[in-house]
Amino acid sequence: MKEFTGYRCSLCGTEYVPGEVTYTCPKDGGNLDVVLDYDEIKKKYQIEDIVSRDDPSLWRYLPLLPVKDPGGEGTPLRMAGGTPVYSPPALKKELGLKSLWIKDEGRNPSASFKDRASSVVVARAREIKSDVVVTASTGNAGAALACMSAAVGQKSVIFAPKTAPPAKVAQLIVFGAQVILVDGNYDSAFDLTIEASREFGWYCRNTGFNPFTVEGKKTGGLEIWEQVLLNLDDECKPACIFVSVGDGNIISGLHKGFKDLRELGWLTQMPRIFGVQSEGSAAIANAFFAGDEKIIPISATTLADSISVDLPRDGVRGVRAARETGGSYILVSDEEIIQGIAALGKVGIFAEPAGSTAYAGLKKALASHLITEDDPVVVINTGNGLKDIKSAMQAVNPAPIIEPSMKALKKHLGI
Amino acid sequence: MKEFTGYRCSLCGTEYVPGEVTYTCPKDGGNLDVVLDYDEIKKKYQIEDIVSRDDPSLWRYLPLLPVKDPGGEGTPLRMAGGTPVYSPPALKKELGLKSLWIKDEGRNPSASFKDRASSVVVARAREIKSDVVVTASTGNAGAALACMSAAVGQKSVIFAPKTAPPAKVAQLIVFGAQVILVDGNYDSAFDLTIEASREFGWYCRNTGFNPFTVEGKKTGGLEIWEQVLLNLDDECKPACIFVSVGDGNIISGLHKGFKDLRELGWLTQMPRIFGVQSEGSAAIANAFFAGDEKIIPISATTLADSISVDLPRDGVRGVRAARETGGSYILVSDEEIIQGIAALGKVGIFAEPAGSTAYAGLKKALASHLITEDDPVVVINTGNGLKDIKSAMQAVNPAPIIEPSMKALKKHLGI
Repeated sequence: MKEFTGYRCSLCGTEYVPGEVTYTCPKDGGNLDVVLDYDEIKKKYQIEDIVSRDDPSLWRYLPLLPVKDPGGEGTPLRMAGGTPVYSPPALKKELGLKSLWIKDEGRNPSASFKDRASSVVVARAREIKSDVVVTASTGNAGAALACMSAAVGQKSVIFAPKTAPPAKVAQLIVFGAQVILVDGNYDSAFDLTIEASREFGWYCRNTGFNPFTVEGKKTGGLEIWEQVLLNLDDECKPACIFVSVGDGNIISGLHKGFKDLRELGWLTQMPRIFGVQSEGSAAIANAFFAGDEKIIPISATTLADSISVDLPRDGVRGVRAARETGGSYILVSDEEIIQGIAALGKVGIFAEPAGSTAYAGLKKALASHLITEDDPVVVINTGNGLKDIKSAMQAVNPAPIIEPSMKALKKHLGI
Repeated sequence: MKEFTGYRCSLCGTEYVPGEVTYTCPKDGGNLDVVLDYDEIKKKYQIEDIVSRDDPSLWRYLPLLPVKDPGGEGTPLRMAGGTPVYSPPALKKELGLKSLWIKDEGRNPSASFKDRASSVVVARAREIKSDVVVTASTGNAGAALACMSAAVGQKSVIFAPKTAPPAKVAQLIVFGAQVILVDGNYDSAFDLTIEASREFGWYCRNTGFNPFTVEGKKTGGLEIWEQVLLNLDDECKPACIFVSVGDGNIISGLHKGFKDLRELGWLTQMPRIFGVQSEGSAAIANAFFAGDEKIIPISATTLADSISVDLPRDGVRGVRAARETGGSYILVSDEEIIQGIAALGKVGIFAEPAGSTAYAGLKKALASHLITEDDPVVVINTGNGLKDIKSAMQAVNPAPIIEPSMKALKKHLGI
């Protein structure tokens, strides 16, 4: 892709041409932003050329992605993204909101937002002819990599903490990845992955570390633009996007997507981005509230496994996503996360804890007047509740068991 | 909907006007087929009017459905169906097939094919102003009803056997349905549901029993027509559709969809429909092989819970779907079902056992020359593997656990 002209370090600003670096900045370890030649893109494409494309998947945004068409027609790789936005009237009413959209990323091929990053990283892996793609994962990123790799016959190796929910581990293995559970947390799996990729020459997908993950994740922002922002009227207040934050890569991806669109002149009003973290895993929020960008590792404890991170790998850009857009960070308790699962379930959306975290954040933002009822709101459900039924069951009462007779039924119903 | 002119009993042929009956034939208990006025539909619509509709969900086929537009804009009810068809090159090659499509129903809102039936039944419930919709379910139908009901604030009650997989039960409860587990099998839950609906005036969604389930499920056939059949060239052999069969309602639904299209003159060549049952739950296949339509109850034992049925409630139409289309029935073992999960997983498709059953049937049909390599093949994955990870784990080896160190990794890899 000619318009992909290189990388820029998010910390020191040093620029690199595409072949010069692979992961983070050699000088200071900063996350690298992919640099695109917006003028060249604008010469070739107008908004209409994008929104009229006959491809409902994230590949409709190929002109804005730093990879070549990966092929893989007819496979899940080509059918990632394109997730629906719901606009549940009952929730809108309950919250008193004028407009509310919930983007259901649980309807991706491997049932989470991470399919976006993994499909673009696999496209990159094919371009640079990698034999093996490896990643550390709390579950979703790995399942997504395993799924997208399986789709096109790419070998993948996944390191996950042994505490990952069983459904996520099952997915990894069924997709044919080589799965290795580590007796440690996500961060120890992360470090091991980097060492292994160095020593064995594997291409490392690790979230944040690999600059292409954010490029994949920005397609979530591009879809929000097309599905929601383009339909808002000009007088409208800026949209408020609520997303859960673990390592900071999804929020950075959304921000990158909106920044690309603004540079192209296709986005008139930048949305405000609100990162929602669990009180027990708040490293990025801490930096945001401290008013700087210094990420201090914590010892994370939250039942929302997807966002339980000691040392966020994309923390600085995660802070900026909220700060530069007039958004904020919001902390919620595990109890509020669990309540969020029930609240979304009641309108037919089954969210995993990291998904309901965003909804819990919205409730808190309204209560604390961070936003008002006439702000247009988008909540991202990052993954399907089927991935973590243990947490889901904490949100509800177990079902009674009765004899299959009318007598037993009437007794149960108190009739 | 004016074109919905009544019902016709699938056994005795007696016809009824819409308000005259609700469930099965009062004379002999036969399943009722919805009768449509094809001439009226043809007067109003041509193929182009359907395929050009700007609605990717199953509601694009509203002109062929016996319900009014149910409203529910912005909810999962409006976004059921519209599932992708994959065409995995690796599987095509492995099986030696000229063409292969796998329709992934796991990408529905509640992650199974049953969303189709439940969304249309909920539309009907709203039309007839039911307070409560009730169903018996092994899990998927209930989750679908709970999801679609939650979407539009319809009260639902679900009876499921206490042996239903935990993920399916969790879904039911999270969607806010009143869930009652019975200490018995699907059939005892089914009978109890019918009694309760009679006594309490609840609208009963029970599969097969309610004539609208097949109407919802036919949208799966309509999508296969639009996504696959319309693109086959005229010289092509008839497509072969593989679908797992429990109570016989999905296969009957597909058949009804194709029959509707043929009557409208929109389908030139009827596909051959192959029903795949587990050896341990083969009541409909038994009737098919015996050359008649008499369904003799069995005592079902299969790990594919969605198709574990003692007494199929749509058996006669299930037999006919295969017999009248030049298809057949195929029996597979639980071991073959488990192997199917791994085979589909390796190309990035995570199927529940009832989904991989169809794939196992395809393999057997090829081995036994029921079909040949140049037959166009469509396999339906009826549900997401996340719904039953216990079975999925039987398909693969568990992952090793190692210390997070290069030394431990190298030892594990034998380097």
